[in-house]
Amino acid sequence: MVDVRIVNAVLASAQGTYEAVLQLNPQFGKPQAVKDITPKYNIVTVIGFVGDIEGNFVYAFNEKTALTIVSRMMGMEYNVLDELSLSAIGELGNMTSGSIAMNLEKLGYKIDITPPTVITGKDMKITAEGIIIRLPVTLFELEDVELHIALRSGK
Amino acid sequence: MVDVRIVNAVLASAQGTYEAVLQLNPQFGKPQAVKDITPKYNIVTVIGFVGDIEGNFVYAFNEKTALTIVSRMMGMEYNVLDELSLSAIGELGNMTSGSIAMNLEKLGYKIDITPPTVITGKDMKITAEGIIIRLPVTLFELEDVELHIALRSGK
Repeated sequence: MVDVRIVNAVLASAQGTYEAVLQLNPQFGKPQAVKDITPKYNIVTVIGFVGDIEGNFVYAFNEKTALTIVSRMMGMEYNVLDELSLSAIGELGNMTSGSIAMNLEKLGYKIDITPPTVITGKDMKITAEGIIIRLPVTLFELEDVELHIALRSGK
Repeated sequence: MVDVRIVNAVLASAQGTYEAVLQLNPQFGKPQAVKDITPKYNIVTVIGFVGDIEGNFVYAFNEKTALTIVSRMMGMEYNVLDELSLSAIGELGNMTSGSIAMNLEKLGYKIDITPPTVITGKDMKITAEGIIIRLPVTLFELEDVELHIALRSGK
Protein backbone atom coordinates (compact mmCIF):
# COMPACT_ATOMS: atom_id res chain seq x y z
CA MET A 1 0.00 0.00 0.00
CA VAL A 2 1.13 3.51 -0.77
CA ASP A 3 0.79 6.11 1.97
CA VAL A 4 -2.05 8.23 0.55
CA ARG A 5 -0.27 11.36 1.79
CA ILE A 6 2.49 10.63 -0.75
CA VAL A 7 0.00 10.67 -3.61
CA ASN A 8 -1.50 13.88 -2.23
CA ALA A 9 1.96 15.45 -1.95
CA VAL A 10 2.67 14.60 -5.60
CA LEU A 11 -0.67 16.05 -6.64
CA ALA A 12 -0.20 19.27 -4.65
CA SER A 13 3.35 19.68 -5.96
CA ALA A 14 2.33 19.20 -9.59
CA GLN A 15 -0.55 21.62 -9.12
CA GLY A 16 1.65 24.29 -7.54
CA THR A 17 4.41 23.91 -10.13
CA TYR A 18 2.10 23.99 -13.15
CA GLU A 19 0.23 26.99 -11.71
CA ALA A 20 3.44 28.91 -11.05
CA VAL A 21 5.31 28.03 -14.25
CA LEU A 22 2.46 27.79 -16.76
CA GLN A 23 -0.01 30.24 -15.23
CA LEU A 24 -2.94 27.87 -15.41
CA ASN A 25 -5.09 25.79 -13.16
CA PRO A 26 -4.50 22.08 -13.88
CA GLN A 27 -7.24 19.50 -13.34
CA PHE A 28 -6.40 16.07 -11.98
CA GLY A 29 -8.09 12.77 -12.77
CA LYS A 30 -8.41 9.86 -10.40
CA PRO A 31 -5.14 8.24 -9.25
CA GLN A 32 -4.98 4.62 -10.28
CA ALA A 33 -2.60 1.73 -9.53
CA VAL A 34 -1.14 0.28 -12.76
CA LYS A 35 1.04 -2.73 -13.47
CA ASP A 36 3.47 -1.01 -15.79
CA ILE A 37 3.69 2.29 -17.59
CA THR A 38 2.32 2.45 -21.11
CA PRO A 39 2.44 6.16 -21.81
CA LYS A 40 -0.30 7.53 -24.04
CA TYR A 41 2.18 10.13 -25.28
CA ASN A 42 5.60 10.08 -26.93
CA ILE A 43 7.52 12.56 -24.81
CA VAL A 44 8.53 11.04 -21.51
CA THR A 45 10.60 12.48 -18.67
CA VAL A 46 12.10 10.08 -16.14
CA ILE A 47 13.48 11.35 -12.83
CA GLY A 48 14.66 8.90 -10.20
CA PHE A 49 14.74 9.42 -6.46
CA VAL A 50 16.58 7.82 -3.55
CA GLY A 51 16.35 8.23 0.20
CA ASP A 52 13.71 7.22 2.75
CA ILE A 53 11.61 6.07 -0.18
CA GLU A 54 12.95 5.39 -3.67
CA GLY A 55 11.68 4.99 -7.18
CA ASN A 56 10.96 7.04 -10.27
CA PHE A 57 8.72 9.83 -11.44
CA VAL A 58 7.62 9.40 -15.05
CA TYR A 59 5.90 12.29 -16.84
CA ALA A 60 4.39 11.83 -20.33
CA PHE A 61 3.28 14.75 -22.52
CA ASN A 62 1.60 14.87 -25.86
CA GLU A 63 3.59 16.80 -28.46
CA LYS A 64 1.20 19.72 -28.85
CA THR A 65 1.02 20.21 -25.10
CA ALA A 66 4.81 19.94 -24.80
CA LEU A 67 5.24 22.71 -27.38
CA THR A 68 2.65 24.91 -25.63
CA ILE A 69 4.46 24.34 -22.32
CA VAL A 70 7.83 25.23 -23.86
CA SER A 71 6.34 28.36 -25.47
CA ARG A 72 5.04 29.50 -22.08
CA MET A 73 8.30 28.70 -20.32
CA MET A 74 10.37 30.52 -22.97
CA GLY A 75 7.93 33.41 -23.38
CA MET A 76 7.92 32.92 -27.15
CA GLU A 77 6.19 30.71 -29.69
CA TYR A 78 7.95 27.38 -30.08
CA ASN A 79 7.10 24.89 -32.82
CA VAL A 80 9.84 22.29 -32.84
CA LEU A 81 10.91 19.64 -30.40
CA ASP A 82 14.60 20.40 -30.61
CA GLU A 83 17.28 20.05 -27.96
CA LEU A 84 16.33 23.32 -26.27
CA SER A 85 12.62 22.48 -25.99
CA LEU A 86 13.29 18.93 -24.75
CA SER A 87 15.63 20.44 -22.19
CA ALA A 88 12.82 22.80 -21.07
CA ILE A 89 10.48 19.81 -20.71
CA GLY A 90 13.16 18.11 -18.60
CA GLU A 91 13.45 21.26 -16.49
CA LEU A 92 9.69 21.27 -15.84
CA GLY A 93 10.03 17.68 -14.60
CA ASN A 94 12.94 18.80 -12.47
CA MET A 95 10.91 21.64 -10.90
CA THR A 96 7.91 19.37 -10.30
CA SER A 97 10.10 16.66 -8.75
CA GLY A 98 11.94 19.23 -6.62
CA SER A 99 8.62 20.45 -5.29
CA ILE A 100 7.54 16.85 -4.60
CA ALA A 101 10.81 16.30 -2.68
CA MET A 102 10.12 19.38 -0.51
CA ASN A 103 6.56 18.31 0.21
CA LEU A 104 7.62 14.74 1.02
CA GLU A 105 10.22 16.03 3.44
CA LYS A 106 7.42 17.75 5.38
CA LEU A 107 5.85 14.27 5.73
CA GLY A 108 9.12 12.87 7.06
CA TYR A 109 10.31 11.23 3.81
CA LYS A 110 13.65 12.70 2.80
CA ILE A 111 14.57 12.04 -0.85
CA ASP A 112 17.13 13.26 -3.38
CA ILE A 113 16.19 13.47 -7.05
CA THR A 114 18.35 12.71 -10.08
CA PRO A 115 18.81 14.88 -13.16
CA PRO A 116 16.04 14.27 -15.72
CA THR A 117 16.24 12.19 -18.86
CA VAL A 118 13.75 13.07 -21.60
CA ILE A 119 12.92 10.19 -23.93
CA THR A 120 11.11 10.51 -27.23
CA GLY A 121 10.06 7.49 -29.29
CA LYS A 122 7.16 5.38 -30.41
CA ASP A 123 5.17 2.59 -28.77
CA MET A 124 7.01 3.04 -25.52
CA LYS A 125 6.50 0.82 -22.52
CA ILE A 126 8.24 1.37 -19.21
CA THR A 127 8.86 -1.31 -16.62
CA ALA A 128 9.57 0.02 -13.15
CA GLU A 129 9.98 -1.49 -9.71
CA GLY A 130 7.48 -1.34 -6.89
CA ILE A 131 3.99 0.04 -6.80
CA ILE A 132 3.05 2.33 -9.69
CA ILE A 133 0.41 5.04 -9.42
CA ARG A 134 -0.85 6.81 -12.54
CA LEU A 135 -2.27 10.31 -12.22
CA PRO A 136 -3.83 11.92 -15.32
CA VAL A 137 -3.53 15.69 -15.59
CA THR A 138 -5.44 18.10 -17.80
CA LEU A 139 -3.50 21.22 -18.74
CA PHE A 140 -4.67 22.43 -22.17
CA GLU A 141 -6.58 19.40 -23.44
CA LEU A 142 -8.29 16.52 -21.66
CA GLU A 143 -5.65 14.45 -19.85
CA ASP A 144 -2.79 15.70 -22.02
CA VAL A 145 -0.23 14.91 -19.33
CA GLU A 146 0.29 11.68 -17.41
CA LEU A 147 2.18 11.57 -14.18
CA HIS A 148 3.40 8.27 -12.73
CA ILE A 149 5.10 7.46 -9.44
CA ALA A 150 6.89 4.13 -9.17
CA LEU A 151 7.65 3.57 -5.54
CA ARG A 152 9.50 0.99 -3.54
CA SER A 153 10.64 1.12 0.06
CA GLY A 154 13.97 2.88 0.63
CA LYS A 155 16.97 1.77 2.62
CA MET B 1 36.02 17.40 -18.85
CA VAL B 2 35.21 14.05 -17.33
CA ASP B 3 37.72 12.59 -14.88
CA VAL B 4 39.10 9.70 -16.95
CA ARG B 5 39.16 7.54 -13.82
CA ILE B 6 35.34 7.73 -13.80
CA VAL B 7 35.19 6.25 -17.30
CA ASN B 8 37.69 3.59 -16.28
CA ALA B 9 35.66 2.76 -13.17
CA VAL B 10 32.53 2.33 -15.31
CA LEU B 11 34.41 0.10 -17.72
CA ALA B 12 35.94 -2.05 -14.97
CA SER B 13 32.56 -2.37 -13.23
CA ALA B 14 30.74 -3.40 -16.40
CA GLN B 15 33.49 -5.90 -17.20
CA GLY B 16 33.41 -7.43 -13.71
CA THR B 17 29.62 -7.61 -13.61
CA TYR B 18 29.23 -9.15 -17.08
CA GLU B 19 31.99 -11.66 -16.34
CA ALA B 20 30.44 -12.69 -13.04
CA VAL B 21 26.80 -12.76 -14.11
CA LEU B 22 27.08 -13.88 -17.74
CA GLN B 23 30.27 -15.96 -17.56
CA LEU B 24 31.87 -14.30 -20.55
CA ASN B 25 34.63 -11.87 -21.34
CA PRO B 26 33.16 -8.64 -22.74
CA GLN B 27 35.07 -6.50 -25.23
CA PHE B 28 34.88 -2.72 -25.03
CA GLY B 29 35.04 -0.23 -27.89
CA LYS B 30 36.45 3.25 -27.65
CA PRO B 31 34.64 5.66 -25.27
CA GLN B 32 33.27 8.63 -27.14
CA ALA B 33 31.64 11.92 -26.10
CA VAL B 34 28.17 12.29 -27.66
CA LYS B 35 25.65 15.13 -27.72
CA ASP B 36 22.61 13.08 -26.91
CA ILE B 37 21.73 9.42 -26.71
CA THR B 38 20.34 7.78 -29.82
CA PRO B 39 20.35 4.13 -28.83
CA LYS B 40 20.98 1.63 -31.62
CA TYR B 41 18.77 -0.82 -29.75
CA ASN B 42 15.19 -0.86 -28.50
CA ILE B 43 15.64 -2.07 -24.93
CA VAL B 44 16.94 0.69 -22.71
CA THR B 45 17.61 0.70 -18.97
CA VAL B 46 17.89 4.07 -17.22
CA ILE B 47 19.36 4.32 -13.72
CA GLY B 48 19.95 7.71 -12.13
CA PHE B 49 22.51 8.60 -9.50
CA VAL B 50 22.93 11.41 -7.00
CA GLY B 51 25.72 12.37 -4.63
CA ASP B 52 29.18 13.84 -5.18
CA ILE B 53 28.51 13.50 -8.89
CA GLU B 54 25.08 13.05 -10.43
CA GLY B 55 23.54 11.95 -13.67
CA ASN B 56 22.25 8.82 -15.37
CA PHE B 57 23.48 5.49 -16.62
CA VAL B 58 21.73 4.40 -19.82
CA TYR B 59 22.18 0.83 -21.09
CA ALA B 60 20.82 -0.24 -24.49
CA PHE B 61 20.56 -3.89 -25.58
CA ASN B 62 19.50 -5.49 -28.79
CA GLU B 63 16.61 -7.89 -28.38
CA LYS B 64 18.48 -11.09 -29.20
CA THR B 65 21.25 -10.19 -26.76
CA ALA B 66 18.71 -9.25 -24.09
CA LEU B 67 17.07 -12.67 -24.41
CA THR B 68 20.43 -14.45 -24.28
CA ILE B 69 21.31 -12.44 -21.15
CA VAL B 70 17.99 -13.31 -19.51
CA SER B 71 18.43 -17.00 -20.39
CA ARG B 72 21.86 -17.01 -18.73
CA MET B 73 20.59 -15.14 -15.67
CA MET B 74 17.59 -17.46 -15.28
CA GLY B 75 19.48 -20.64 -16.14
CA MET B 76 16.85 -21.57 -18.73
CA GLU B 77 16.02 -20.75 -22.32
CA TYR B 78 13.99 -17.55 -22.56
CA ASN B 79 12.35 -16.38 -25.79
CA VAL B 80 9.98 -13.59 -24.86
CA LEU B 81 10.49 -10.11 -23.55
CA ASP B 82 7.82 -10.31 -20.89
CA GLU B 83 7.65 -8.63 -17.52
CA LEU B 84 9.99 -11.16 -15.93
CA SER B 85 12.69 -10.84 -18.58
CA LEU B 86 12.53 -7.02 -18.63
CA SER B 87 12.83 -7.12 -14.87
CA ALA B 88 15.96 -9.31 -15.21
CA ILE B 89 17.43 -6.78 -17.68
CA GLY B 90 16.70 -4.05 -15.12
CA GLU B 91 18.41 -6.13 -12.45
CA LEU B 92 21.54 -6.48 -14.60
CA GLY B 93 21.59 -2.66 -14.89
CA ASN B 94 21.13 -2.48 -11.14
CA MET B 95 24.08 -4.82 -10.50
CA THR B 96 26.29 -2.98 -12.99
CA SER B 97 25.38 0.41 -11.50
CA GLY B 98 25.90 -0.89 -7.96
CA SER B 99 29.38 -2.04 -8.93
CA ILE B 100 30.07 1.37 -10.54
CA ALA B 101 28.95 3.06 -7.30
CA MET B 102 31.39 0.93 -5.28
CA ASN B 103 34.28 1.63 -7.63
CA LEU B 104 33.52 5.37 -7.69
CA GLU B 105 33.50 5.45 -3.91
CA LYS B 106 37.08 4.15 -3.97
CA LEU B 107 37.92 7.23 -6.07
CA GLY B 108 36.27 9.51 -3.50
CA TYR B 109 32.96 9.99 -5.35
CA LYS B 110 30.09 8.79 -3.18
CA ILE B 111 26.85 8.20 -5.11
CA ASP B 112 23.47 6.56 -4.54
CA ILE B 113 21.69 4.88 -7.43
CA THR B 114 17.96 4.81 -8.15
CA PRO B 115 15.86 1.76 -9.01
CA PRO B 116 15.99 0.96 -12.74
CA THR B 117 13.39 1.76 -15.34
CA VAL B 118 13.43 -0.42 -18.47
CA ILE B 119 12.00 1.25 -21.55
CA THR B 120 11.10 -0.51 -24.76
CA GLY B 121 9.99 1.34 -27.87
CA LYS B 122 10.97 2.41 -31.35
CA ASP B 123 13.10 5.28 -32.68
CA MET B 124 14.07 6.35 -29.20
CA LYS B 125 16.15 9.40 -28.46
CA ILE B 126 17.23 10.37 -24.97
CA THR B 127 18.16 13.87 -23.88
CA ALA B 128 20.21 14.03 -20.70
CA GLU B 129 22.03 16.73 -18.79
CA GLY B 130 25.77 17.25 -18.66
CA ILE B 131 28.54 15.47 -20.49
CA ILE B 132 27.59 12.17 -22.12
CA ILE B 133 30.07 9.37 -22.78
CA ARG B 134 29.11 6.41 -24.95
CA LEU B 135 30.87 3.11 -24.45
CA PRO B 136 30.12 0.27 -26.89
CA VAL B 137 30.32 -3.26 -25.48
CA THR B 138 30.53 -6.57 -27.32
CA LEU B 139 28.97 -9.47 -25.46
CA PHE B 140 27.67 -12.02 -27.98
CA GLU B 141 27.69 -9.99 -31.20
CA LEU B 142 29.69 -6.95 -32.28
CA GLU B 143 28.73 -4.00 -30.10
CA ASP B 144 25.40 -5.50 -29.07
CA VAL B 145 25.27 -3.40 -25.89
CA GLU B 146 25.72 0.35 -25.50
CA LEU B 147 26.55 1.91 -22.18
CA HIS B 148 26.16 5.65 -21.65
CA ILE B 149 27.08 7.84 -18.70
CA ALA B 150 25.48 11.29 -18.52
CA LEU B 151 27.33 13.24 -15.89
CA ARG B 152 26.96 16.62 -14.29
CA SER B 153 28.62 17.98 -11.18
CA GLY B 154 26.90 17.07 -7.91
CA LYS B 155 25.88 19.26 -5.02
